[in-house]
Amino acid sequence: MTLTAPDQTSTGYDLGPAAALSCRACGHRTPLAPEFACPQCFGPLEIAYDFPAITREEIERGPKSIWRYKKLLPVPTTVEDHPNMDPGFTRLIRADRLGAELGIRNLWVKDDTGNPTHSFKDRVVAVALAAARELGFTVLACPSTGNLANATAAAAARAGWDSVVLIPSSLERAKVLMTAVYDTNLLAVEGNYDDVNRLATELAFEQEDWAFVNVNVRPYYAEGSKSLGYEISEQLGWRVPAQTVIPVASGSQLTKIDKAYGELVSLGLVDAADWKIFGAQAAGCSPVSTAFREGTDVVRPQRPDTIARSLAIGNPADGPYVLDTVRRTGGAVTDVTDDEVRDGIRLLARTEGVFAETAGGVTVANAKKLVETGQLDPDADTVLLITGDGLKTLDAIEHQVGPKATVPATSKAVREALGI
Amino acid sequence: MTLTAPDQTSTGYDLGPAAALSCRACGHRTPLAPEFACPQCFGPLEIAYDFPAITREEIERGPKSIWRYKKLLPVPTTVEDHPNMDPGFTRLIRADRLGAELGIRNLWVKDDTGNPTHSFKDRVVAVALAAARELGFTVLACPSTGNLANATAAAAARAGWDSVVLIPSSLERAKVLMTAVYDTNLLAVEGNYDDVNRLATELAFEQEDWAFVNVNVRPYYAEGSKSLGYEISEQLGWRVPAQTVIPVASGSQLTKIDKAYGELVSLGLVDAADWKIFGAQAAGCSPVSTAFREGTDVVRPQRPDTIARSLAIGNPADGPYVLDTVRRTGGAVTDVTDDEVRDGIRLLARTEGVFAETAGGVTVANAKKLVETGQLDPDADTVLLITGDGLKTLDAIEHQVGPKATVPATSKAVREALGI
Repeated sequence: MTLTAPDQTSTGYDLGPAAALSCRACGHRTPLAPEFACPQCFGPLEIAYDFPAITREEIERGPKSIWRYKKLLPVPTTVEDHPNMDPGFTRLIRADRLGAELGIRNLWVKDDTGNPTHSFKDRVVAVALAAARELGFTVLACPSTGNLANATAAAAARAGWDSVVLIPSSLERAKVLMTAVYDTNLLAVEGNYDDVNRLATELAFEQEDWAFVNVNVRPYYAEGSKSLGYEISEQLGWRVPAQTVIPVASGSQLTKIDKAYGELVSLGLVDAADWKIFGAQAAGCSPVSTAFREGTDVVRPQRPDTIARSLAIGNPADGPYVLDTVRRTGGAVTDVTDDEVRDGIRLLARTEGVFAETAGGVTVANAKKLVETGQLDPDADTVLLITGDGLKTLDAIEHQVGPKATVPATSKAVREALGI
Repeated sequence: MTLTAPDQTSTGYDLGPAAALSCRACGHRTPLAPEFACPQCFGPLEIAYDFPAITREEIERGPKSIWRYKKLLPVPTTVEDHPNMDPGFTRLIRADRLGAELGIRNLWVKDDTGNPTHSFKDRVVAVALAAARELGFTVLACPSTGNLANATAAAAARAGWDSVVLIPSSLERAKVLMTAVYDTNLLAVEGNYDDVNRLATELAFEQEDWAFVNVNVRPYYAEGSKSLGYEISEQLGWRVPAQTVIPVASGSQLTKIDKAYGELVSLGLVDAADWKIFGAQAAGCSPVSTAFREGTDVVRPQRPDTIARSLAIGNPADGPYVLDTVRRTGGAVTDVTDDEVRDGIRLLARTEGVFAETAGGVTVANAKKLVETGQLDPDADTVLLITGDGLKTLDAIEHQVGPKATVPATSKAVREALGI
């Protein structure tokens, strides 16, 4: 018999290797808790770790999901015992045909459309749900313009949790239906995404048992994106790619992939190497690329107007950290027009058979631009992040593609239509 | 130096363990070739194998795709050297919450929405493409009502092959756009699916270099569905589930899963066991369940009228073989109404966070019916096949689900709308 409880941090929470919360602005450390703002300066909190020793072999023996990296994420050691979506470990495919078109010799595509609700949001929500359970929350919630709504409602359904999902009332049909079908408390809010986000922050203070995954559980949630960096490195044979191109909405994903690469080096799981991180935006919502181009640290908010609606955050929370990351690594942040986004979707589809949402078109089109402007080295290993599915943003291509012809049911008509 | 070529069958094709084509009607054997009808009786040909010795460990070391089973499929030993979609090894999830609703104690869902184009068709097309290349074809083609069109166009794009996809001119928007985006030669044909299918057969005879995956390459193509049976057994810890419920369109998938189970036993990869196979149809297209209910061997064609359009084959090629399989194993074929299909989609989504297309609703609703009528043993291990994605059949639920309310952006309005 022992008087000390096993597997618990000094705060009483089992959140695996997570050791504390640390302010990204002032560096103040505070115990693990259901908090998201620094008690000293109100800056954003993130997770500080005390990692255990871990080997490649141990990871490779793990499940085919993000939980193979659970010892590197802020989740309980028992995370897999609870029903969850088991996202991750999606395909990393060689993209030689796309590479030939872009002029990149060694190119890969990380295809996160294979996640359960077909976007990378399943990763961050799975980590948020696991942490929320440990922190004592009982309701999963989010403000969202789509992919996060799908992922949150689905994860709550599978876990048997109640959920509340807030969306702008103008949201597209596919994203509304794919959220409502999970029987969540889906509310359409009169206003734009900024209004919905503000409402969520207000509710997070008022409803103590509601875990808004991207608001009051954000320090835990955001870490889920590290799994993308781990997977890319493992799938490349345990090495960090020289160049990674990542779409930027809030900017969180980009900073966490860079963080993951750094952790792998620190832990001795990959060899030390230089890498460059590139951020991809749409011209119609380009606050970070504008700041990068102007050489400033200040990200000035914009009013979004782009078909890349999943990236349409005019005041990105992690914008300054994106600038830090790309400047430190020698990368860049650029942007492309909506027409280039549509071309990017089609180029990826016709060369690699991957149908991406508009955010994927943003990534491909920016990669093309980066090569053309000499910012991306065509001889260095390059990975493009495809984070969401084309079936959710059909409007973007409906006037671009379709049947080549409508023909009578005769082989002669088919041959004539095809000119053979 | 040797005068004999390595790695070739006596026919000159490297198709792995495939040894010959065998007539399912008369048993006549004929060498491997680009043929699909018996030269003796015009019956359907299928693959006869000469399997190598193979161990669980060897399979487990393989890639996380159907190619881990390549030594059990009619594909070249070099199949992975060519760009392809690498489908398969999708999630098999414990479904305790769905099981509680259905009254099944040990229930799993095989979730094939995680495949690259979000249906099981990626499996069969990958096998068809690999065989077609070896057999000397240069164009990939199909007649389809949707999922197969998506899978064929995507696989051809990634492989760098030309493709021809024929669809009925009335097809839904999501399936048309998700095919056209891959830049295939997509032709809308005036007529219904039967007309398109007949046209494809005509073209298969006229265009010697066109591999219509489900027509003249069908013996190879159909074997791809065996991978579902292999995966289910491996993911259960190398055992065959006592009961498997499978949607029936042409019926091919059902017979191939049963075939896979039998092969695993023969090869000593799983212990011998009894299993029952159940077929699931929609009442609006129920030729096989009707024949089963009437106790006859004759499947009388029907004119389909159901929301489960991916199952709407009124004259299913493998109908008689489905009847053989379910009767031999002690299973059944049943059908459900379109309202039950919609309820099945919603039940699966709200209990497990899996959003299935209408075919998935058919499977879930039939499982419910089979338990209620005492045909499915609630105490036996049971697996349900979810073979396609809800994002492709949004019309089926658009009048059933939606936001609970539209509210102003105030926390008071949110609480009032939720009654808290």
